[in-house]
Amino acid sequence: MPSERAMKTGSACPPPPGPGKLRLYSMRFCPYAERTRLFLAAKGIEYETVNIHLKEKPEWLFEKTPIGKVPVLEKDGKIVYESLVCNEYLDGIYPDKCITPRDPLEKARQSMVLALWDAKVVGFYYKLITAKEDERPALTKQFVDGLQFIEKALTQPFFSGDKAGALDYNLWPWFERFCMLKHVGFELSVDKFPKLTAWMERMMQLPEVKACYFPPEVHGQFGKSWMSGTPDFDIGLEE
Amino acid sequence: MPSERAMKTGSACPPPPGPGKLRLYSMRFCPYAERTRLFLAAKGIEYETVNIHLKEKPEWLFEKTPIGKVPVLEKDGKIVYESLVCNEYLDGIYPDKCITPRDPLEKARQSMVLALWDAKVVGFYYKLITAKEDERPALTKQFVDGLQFIEKALTQPFFSGDKAGALDYNLWPWFERFCMLKHVGFELSVDKFPKLTAWMERMMQLPEVKACYFPPEVHGQFGKSWMSGTPDFDIGLEE
Repeated sequence: MPSERAMKTGSACPPPPGPGKLRLYSMRFCPYAERTRLFLAAKGIEYETVNIHLKEKPEWLFEKTPIGKVPVLEKDGKIVYESLVCNEYLDGIYPDKCITPRDPLEKARQSMVLALWDAKVVGFYYKLITAKEDERPALTKQFVDGLQFIEKALTQPFFSGDKAGALDYNLWPWFERFCMLKHVGFELSVDKFPKLTAWMERMMQLPEVKACYFPPEVHGQFGKSWMSGTPDFDIGLEE
Repeated sequence: MPSERAMKTGSACPPPPGPGKLRLYSMRFCPYAERTRLFLAAKGIEYETVNIHLKEKPEWLFEKTPIGKVPVLEKDGKIVYESLVCNEYLDGIYPDKCITPRDPLEKARQSMVLALWDAKVVGFYYKLITAKEDERPALTKQFVDGLQFIEKALTQPFFSGDKAGALDYNLWPWFERFCMLKHVGFELSVDKFPKLTAWMERMMQLPEVKACYFPPEVHGQFGKSWMSGTPDFDIGLEE
């Protein structure tokens, strides 16, 4: 098994995983990869991880995925990429503890909330992180307005009902990272977001969330290194 | 049944469709809506259409979908939006002639080609249409490079195998519109794209494609009206 340290340009492609073994190409602080790590943890699937240096990508990454992003799954010579595709694929090949909704309307509902997330929230999140001071008020308003759609979509203890499910895992990684918006003056307040803040507390209790979690200090340290142009993908790992 | 003419700002929301009836909110020349029209035609589902004026959107559209885009499905008080979500939902509630792949790996493969399409092709298509002359060569190169991934993904008569399937219908609408790139000097050539050009001929023979099709002159006329800032959504319809 390769180490957890991020693999870079010029590295040799690790040999394929053994028969029946599952491998995840990931980046420890990537929210999209965390979606898939959450699915894997919730389903209790064993897997190995190859972390990728996303600023100096190994050439062989593009043989696995022309898009060159993580997460990517590899098993028995088959490659699957894109977080939502990976997650549904995992439910297909490991049908135990199926997380993806089977009911067509519930599946559509969850996909529509993710579409709202993409259209109304996530773009503003990334813009806000790097926004100059005078851009912040307008961006914060758009971001908060978008989040109100998500607050409204939460009508049960979890987005997926009484228990956490696909939509919860697919949204969570950004909420874990909202701590990174403190420096631009954003906090998810109980006042404006009573349902989302209570949901965050419920999520934090789940073993699968704890298993994939990094605390605010570590996200902050990674964020700082990213902004400086030399991201440290190996924070906390031994040489 | 309302007429086919596009409904505008200030119009009254049409009463909901009757029990068990399916309605599609659409725009006659929208490629995303055509994805769903192709699914509906291939499955032989009866439905009514309400066309939307996408430059002067009716206020009530945002009560159906906060994103304010088409296609949107409505049936028995349930609303579903986003083209790919609509299509999978149709297979869920009308399981006859299921188009969405049931095999997890085939489903993932089709989704990955669509992800490539989104990441490598479709953005350049829209940029090219409105590109200034000096921007065209670079954009055309990126567009052609992206299309090569799609050419490579076509390894059978259809993207979905021996018969047209979900991936074929979800890609087709832009190929129908490639005629609109003639004025910027792009044509899908047999030389560079032998498989895609042959696939287009096979697609053109399908009844479901014929049923949803507009000829190049009409796309051209619509495109011109769009670029002029006053799109004519009602080309060819009676007053």
